[in-house]
Amino acid sequence: MAEANAVRVGLLGFGTIGSNVYRVIEQEHDAILDLTGIDLRVAHIVEKDFSRAGVDAPAELFTDDFKRVLDDPAVSIVVELIGGTDWAFTFVEAALRGGRDVVTANKQLLANRGAGLFELAAQLGRQIRFEASVGGAIPVIKVMREGMIAADLHTVYGIVNGTTNYILTALYRGEGDYAETLKKAQELGYAEADPTADVGGGDAAAKMAILASIAFRTRVTMADVTYEGIQDVTLDDVQYAKDFGFVVKLIGAARLVDGRVNVRVHPALVPEGHLLASINGSYNAVYLRGHTIDEIMLTGPGAGGPPTATAVVSDIMNIVGTDSAGFLQNCSCRRDLDRFPDGEMRSAFFTRFKVEDRAGVLAQIASIFGDHDVSIESMIQKGQGDEAELMVITHPTVERGFFAAIEKVAALSCVKSRPATIRVL
Amino acid sequence: MAEANAVRVGLLGFGTIGSNVYRVIEQEHDAILDLTGIDLRVAHIVEKDFSRAGVDAPAELFTDDFKRVLDDPAVSIVVELIGGTDWAFTFVEAALRGGRDVVTANKQLLANRGAGLFELAAQLGRQIRFEASVGGAIPVIKVMREGMIAADLHTVYGIVNGTTNYILTALYRGEGDYAETLKKAQELGYAEADPTADVGGGDAAAKMAILASIAFRTRVTMADVTYEGIQDVTLDDVQYAKDFGFVVKLIGAARLVDGRVNVRVHPALVPEGHLLASINGSYNAVYLRGHTIDEIMLTGPGAGGPPTATAVVSDIMNIVGTDSAGFLQNCSCRRDLDRFPDGEMRSAFFTRFKVEDRAGVLAQIASIFGDHDVSIESMIQKGQGDEAELMVITHPTVERGFFAAIEKVAALSCVKSRPATIRVL
Repeated sequence: MAEANAVRVGLLGFGTIGSNVYRVIEQEHDAILDLTGIDLRVAHIVEKDFSRAGVDAPAELFTDDFKRVLDDPAVSIVVELIGGTDWAFTFVEAALRGGRDVVTANKQLLANRGAGLFELAAQLGRQIRFEASVGGAIPVIKVMREGMIAADLHTVYGIVNGTTNYILTALYRGEGDYAETLKKAQELGYAEADPTADVGGGDAAAKMAILASIAFRTRVTMADVTYEGIQDVTLDDVQYAKDFGFVVKLIGAARLVDGRVNVRVHPALVPEGHLLASINGSYNAVYLRGHTIDEIMLTGPGAGGPPTATAVVSDIMNIVGTDSAGFLQNCSCRRDLDRFPDGEMRSAFFTRFKVEDRAGVLAQIASIFGDHDVSIESMIQKGQGDEAELMVITHPTVERGFFAAIEKVAALSCVKSRPATIRVL
Repeated sequence: MAEANAVRVGLLGFGTIGSNVYRVIEQEHDAILDLTGIDLRVAHIVEKDFSRAGVDAPAELFTDDFKRVLDDPAVSIVVELIGGTDWAFTFVEAALRGGRDVVTANKQLLANRGAGLFELAAQLGRQIRFEASVGGAIPVIKVMREGMIAADLHTVYGIVNGTTNYILTALYRGEGDYAETLKKAQELGYAEADPTADVGGGDAAAKMAILASIAFRTRVTMADVTYEGIQDVTLDDVQYAKDFGFVVKLIGAARLVDGRVNVRVHPALVPEGHLLASINGSYNAVYLRGHTIDEIMLTGPGAGGPPTATAVVSDIMNIVGTDSAGFLQNCSCRRDLDRFPDGEMRSAFFTRFKVEDRAGVLAQIASIFGDHDVSIESMIQKGQGDEAELMVITHPTVERGFFAAIEKVAALSCVKSRPATIRVL
């Protein structure tokens, strides 16, 4: 393994995302070192609120003075997680001018004041990365910015707000009306006490401004996005749409039409067979179409501390890894890992076979499974007489034990066909 | 816009993928130049078969001598699309030693002889990119290699063979038995005349070896992958599994268990609610879990000339773009695009409103829509008397016209509630 390359980070903000970023960096330190050769640590935490100093991170890392970060030559990357568009802008600008690359999760900063920051970064030869600003850990920015560069994208559809997707899914499932499902979303922590930014479409609009800018390599700001929320969508609308074969979703749509850009957020009826129709609950998805591709969709949980923190830390690693000698430039194997034998793997199984239709057969078979520590989740007999067939689903079990049991079952005189076996995921 | 940066490519092989790569590079030349500042062209096509020379690409580009590529100092990237593991290995090795970066779609080469090539590339400071080797245009390699670097992945599930997924989907839908659905897949071009590599699991195994190597940054070869195909899966198996709430899929599973690697391909029962259960027909999907993320899934068409070519060209652009001054290092806006006005956008609409339950009402409403060029796809009356409600779904129409029509409809004395309107995606 190559020598470790130390990378030190200044963390601005220690709220939900900030504390998770600190935790992920600490928890994954050795795995990241092993995978990439990078020794990654947080050097400073800039935060007004010291109540978590010494609790969730060592007290000596905390400071309320951003200058301490700027003055530390060991810090090469500044992570901005304070939110808002004023101090965040000031700090990001100062970090870039101070020769640091920047990672941020701040969608409002980018959607409102991103243009100037990106220009400044380009002039200074610095990077701004912001994967965490849209879709939690789903790497939508990277995919659009880098992975789809030849696809000549013309359409980006996003389900980019988990709160509204949770509510619309609950309406579709008939779990209550709009007020009831919103209340439940608030109780479960999927919606804020003041849900306006989510249910009104503003949160999705900021995210779509970012996605459109990246997909089309142009500048779309919050002011360019027309948006509606889901406040006027009723249980009746959703249920009637269901009768017609549609699912109602809050869709962000960024399109290139005749060389011009249109970006908006509005409820839409999505046909049941569409990939986006299967995105339920608080999940997010981004769906891409281009001149050389039909459709690509990415999905996963769209928010939450750990996934969002994962996106932040991946951004940090990408800044480091794209150095000329960076680990992302080659695919040489860093880890020499042993193979885990198939027989020791654990799986649940589905199996079926014909049996004699008489008393005692099930007990005999169940006893063989029991002897091999195979626990049965369900066992159903279908058909009668000569057509009697047994279907078994097991709990996860060591595969070697299951196969040994099946051999014994197959050898029973009451078993009339070779058991078919398929694993359960 | 910055000055154009010329990039010249040597293309090895002019079969389905090769000819599509040529076509995408030509067709997207101006868009790529506009998006990235790169002037991308194919300089040579190395091919034994000259039957398409002068037809699908200029005859003067064709040669049967790879040395012509090596001897051309303008060529910085070699694209290997000849397949197999012998000549392909020789050419890729020669290209790397000749100072060229390499893009390949050759899963067999990578799964069997990739280790040596990656080590060589790392020693020489050259890149090998291979997004097209798995999942067509779905950027699974990029996402695992770069986007999920902090996720500490421990599980990769893949539906990575379109032929088998097509057959299993048809069995699930009851469209025939195994032999019938295989035959239909062959007729539609989803399966080869000799389908062994697909239905036997070997194709998926090679792809899983590649995915596992990247996900876990270790070396997994074809020889490390245990695989089964779908030849023994019957219509009964699939239909019985459906009764239990499962969908049968051919699943590639790469897992880290107690620090050891296990990679296999086998049919599996996937619970209906699982993200992978919704991947139908010839689509592919890759599903990721890690220590810091719950689940992320990417999906799209897994094969086909244009999507696979798109992945190849995106790889070329990534090699160019990760140069120290590369366009991927910053997000400055390259295109200054006008906004397309909302009112001129085209959408289909769903609308519903209460109406008087009497003759002539539908005609009156239909006539207003007609006057505004709004064509009606379906119109249904629900309820009777005071409860009579009209539901209309339109064909795609200019939005301004639809909204003008709705205002007129709302003003009718026979319309008893404000029309609710939701767009149809």
